[in-house]
Amino acid sequence: MSFTFSIISSDENARRGEITTHHGKIQTPAFMPVGTYGAVKAISPQVLEEIGADVILSNTYHLMERPGIETIKQLGGIHNFMGWTRPLLTDSGGYQVFSLAKKRKISEKGVDFFSPLNGNQLHLSPETCMQHQMDLGVDIAMVLDECTPYPVEHQIAKDSMELSMRWASRCRDSFLSEKNALFGIIQGGVYQDLREESLSCLIKSEFEGYAIGGLSVGETKEEMNAVVAYISPKMPQEKPRYLMGVGTPLDIIHSVQQGIDLFDCVLPTRNARNGYLFTSKGVVKIRNSHNRIYEGPIDDACLCYTCRNFSRSYLHHLDKTKEMLGSTLNSIHNLFFYIELMSNIRLAIEEGKLKIFAEKFFKNWDNDINS
Amino acid sequence: MSFTFSIISSDENARRGEITTHHGKIQTPAFMPVGTYGAVKAISPQVLEEIGADVILSNTYHLMERPGIETIKQLGGIHNFMGWTRPLLTDSGGYQVFSLAKKRKISEKGVDFFSPLNGNQLHLSPETCMQHQMDLGVDIAMVLDECTPYPVEHQIAKDSMELSMRWASRCRDSFLSEKNALFGIIQGGVYQDLREESLSCLIKSEFEGYAIGGLSVGETKEEMNAVVAYISPKMPQEKPRYLMGVGTPLDIIHSVQQGIDLFDCVLPTRNARNGYLFTSKGVVKIRNSHNRIYEGPIDDACLCYTCRNFSRSYLHHLDKTKEMLGSTLNSIHNLFFYIELMSNIRLAIEEGKLKIFAEKFFKNWDNDINS
Repeated sequence: MSFTFSIISSDENARRGEITTHHGKIQTPAFMPVGTYGAVKAISPQVLEEIGADVILSNTYHLMERPGIETIKQLGGIHNFMGWTRPLLTDSGGYQVFSLAKKRKISEKGVDFFSPLNGNQLHLSPETCMQHQMDLGVDIAMVLDECTPYPVEHQIAKDSMELSMRWASRCRDSFLSEKNALFGIIQGGVYQDLREESLSCLIKSEFEGYAIGGLSVGETKEEMNAVVAYISPKMPQEKPRYLMGVGTPLDIIHSVQQGIDLFDCVLPTRNARNGYLFTSKGVVKIRNSHNRIYEGPIDDACLCYTCRNFSRSYLHHLDKTKEMLGSTLNSIHNLFFYIELMSNIRLAIEEGKLKIFAEKFFKNWDNDINS
Repeated sequence: MSFTFSIISSDENARRGEITTHHGKIQTPAFMPVGTYGAVKAISPQVLEEIGADVILSNTYHLMERPGIETIKQLGGIHNFMGWTRPLLTDSGGYQVFSLAKKRKISEKGVDFFSPLNGNQLHLSPETCMQHQMDLGVDIAMVLDECTPYPVEHQIAKDSMELSMRWASRCRDSFLSEKNALFGIIQGGVYQDLREESLSCLIKSEFEGYAIGGLSVGETKEEMNAVVAYISPKMPQEKPRYLMGVGTPLDIIHSVQQGIDLFDCVLPTRNARNGYLFTSKGVVKIRNSHNRIYEGPIDDACLCYTCRNFSRSYLHHLDKTKEMLGSTLNSIHNLFFYIELMSNIRLAIEEGKLKIFAEKFFKNWDNDINS
């Protein structure tokens, strides 16, 4: 196993760590930009490296639909296919089957569903899901899980979680890799007892890391934070902890304080394409008429390519004229902001100052700094 | 005047030259990527520089509509606005008024028209057109001309050309710049006598360069080539010659052989977005199912970022999934191909081998190499 995790320092519940994979190291806490179809939207691998992304995420479900796992396997795996040389994690597809697929039928065996894209009948079982991720050659694979809907009664959440746990165990048994890691996913909805039971179950299978899944499905921010605050400190100390699909800069800081090491979210890239740009003081909406004539950059303090070279006026203009370059420059900025945020978080942990850092960040934050 | 042109060597009618501008040098024959709205579609200035573009073109007409010339002036000019440090030429807007504007009224004074974008009433006269290009701070400005339609009777073409010539003279009088150049535009449709008369007229005003305008408006390729072959050798030897809006690699090679020094065309970038990719052997259509599983690059011999890092399979996939990155990677390749083509043309002229180069290129060319 070439996958290892070590904790360099800690600050209350927060940890500063380092993951080593077959494709290089990941400094944690880390944020993974999302490359759904094997491409981070509007950003080349070269630019991603320049921005300083250690690791990215791609989606098994989407890659199954297009171009197909077999095609990527034939072309030497996902790294070779997309020209990305650093670590890569794939989602198992469980969440997407829940949120995107048509006419899904879940059984003990797995899930049958139809692609909304082309109507093709598709199937995912714990075993095929592992095979897909092995064929892709990803550094970190995720177990297949059933994503429990919200709101849901305790008994249904329990049944769903227990199915996911049986699947997790089958995933562990069928994931055969000397060099890559498999993470288990804690389910149980907003019920603390179920989350704890799920975690106990997973620990028996000895995964290389543990994730909190099934959040951001409709529950309130308070409910989400409560789940993270409750379960995170109980997760194995010596393994990476991953909070799936989260979130805003505030969510990330809050969750790092609960001991989370890994994050992924479409927010920086999706918001970039919609002209919502992150700064240390909050969100700049580039479409705001305030930015029509504005000679300064998005953020005076930012050192990204976009801020070093372009005014808000220019970005406002690119947005108005629907130039693709606008999406690219905005995405560069937002991803740089996230990567830089993680770097500052790591430094704050090393210096034992995360609490001060967080308080200052929360205090300065404004959801629309032009309003 | 910091604008100069010198001929380094020649090969029959073809010339290998160098233009010096306030923003640096242009090696000729040169191709100018098109950045209509002050942005080459899907490509950042950094990438354009890496590709090796000496000079780009932008459109006065489009910049008048969005963001407005005054805005760019306030932001320090077009170079500062778009983050481009090398030479830049603007089209005068004459052609776009002809092809895009609504309800245009042409008079001796100038042209009134309505923006199809927002219904705003706009006006271009020789004097305002020069003021706009001076405000933008472009290295090479173009005179305002009336683009003669096709087909058209001799008398109408003559009247139109004569109006353009009176406008050209007013442009010369009102273009006040110590450092930037103004080019005249030869009109006259497909009539050789009118083209010659137009050229004589322009020469009296002593422009820093001369362009052939009013082509690619519906005439046959033979008619276009005949105009270029007739008028190009008669254009002043010691000034740059610019064939506007042309064209395919074959058109460019053919026109260089007639003595043309400058080209611009949307073809490499527009075709890139549609998956038509140029190679030394002809056109690769990336959407072709032949490229679904194809491990090699677009062109084995190409050294562009795209060909060095990505397979045709990946580009086929990005096209299918409508990922913006596909447009970017395809545009990088096509622009690199054009820039490289010009570099090879210059070398062939220096070595006195342009005829052999052209014959070989024409012989190898295939409009769809997978068919």
